[in-house]
Amino acid sequence: MGVNEIDRLIQVLSKLPGLGPRSARRASLHLIKNREAILKPLALAMEAVAENIQTCSTCGNLDAADPCSICTNSKRDGNIICVVEEVADLWALERSATYNGSYHVLGGVLSPLDGIGPDDLMLDGLLARAKVGSVVEVILATSATVDGKTTAHYITGLLVNCAVNVTALAHGIPVGGELDYLDDGTLSAAMKERRGI
Amino acid sequence: MGVNEIDRLIQVLSKLPGLGPRSARRASLHLIKNREAILKPLALAMEAVAENIQTCSTCGNLDAADPCSICTNSKRDGNIICVVEEVADLWALERSATYNGSYHVLGGVLSPLDGIGPDDLMLDGLLARAKVGSVVEVILATSATVDGKTTAHYITGLLVNCAVNVTALAHGIPVGGELDYLDDGTLSAAMKERRGI
Repeated sequence: MGVNEIDRLIQVLSKLPGLGPRSARRASLHLIKNREAILKPLALAMEAVAENIQTCSTCGNLDAADPCSICTNSKRDGNIICVVEEVADLWALERSATYNGSYHVLGGVLSPLDGIGPDDLMLDGLLARAKVGSVVEVILATSATVDGKTTAHYITGLLVNCAVNVTALAHGIPVGGELDYLDDGTLSAAMKERRGI
Repeated sequence: MGVNEIDRLIQVLSKLPGLGPRSARRASLHLIKNREAILKPLALAMEAVAENIQTCSTCGNLDAADPCSICTNSKRDGNIICVVEEVADLWALERSATYNGSYHVLGGVLSPLDGIGPDDLMLDGLLARAKVGSVVEVILATSATVDGKTTAHYITGLLVNCAVNVTALAHGIPVGGELDYLDDGTLSAAMKERRGI
């Protein structure tokens, strides 16, 4: 401390999500101690990202190319669009390896309290894409929160004149979840949407 | 994911203490989203640290100068040496603003299980400093763990022929600590070392 360079590094690191002042100090020391193994590779990785990564003008994904590798992948079904809030949600769905269509990243959710209205989300692009004749389905994969639900509801309204099937992710018991620990809302949704075996 | 530059950034970030794969992903997205506000300042801060910060050859502290600003500060008492395990411990003591002497950073603790012996610590430098006639006190501020205690005991043995007063930090109840939640060892130490009011 008292050393400007180190203080500055700690200060910037502590702005990262999940790092407070204490863990930023630990991370800084770790970086300084492992100059060759971590500090320099991290600087290079950050430089590469700053130079190469851009937002896909079609779907809002982050990629080295625009349109992104998902939009241009001919093995994926461009006629199904999965609407997600953030790139992190897109990554989560990709990790689950369960979906082979295209995406649309909204860049947030409607949140009147935070002053986020329809104009702040990438809704125009979604509408334009949904109006293309070949598109058959729009999957609303927003979060199951009040804001996420509101956003999904709003988008459903926007798409009412498009000839697409609007769907949403299923509610129910998380895989591995114990009934005893689940909230009433989830249990009630799982009971309502029960299915034959 | 699947984007090499982003994957690489996540991979390096997840090597930092306190960041796992999930929080490294969050941090990466945060960096990409805040390119001007965080990514570039962080890159600059890391570059400055990599170029300027070095280990003080006297005490082992990290600083832009060698000897460090604590060793060269004429307002500090160079005749008292506080021995700490890591630079993080030095920072912690500096934050407490309770000590105005010099430091000696060991760079670890004796730990036979991890294969860390006396040769791996900065002990020669400490001995040489303690032998200087004007030095009056060596404060052993290692952790109150088995390894920290062992290290302090070992150093006490080394210093037995030096004309210095060897002391250690006091044990007792942490300020703000509730007796009910304290371990037996701490309570017993606090009772043994009770003092008149």
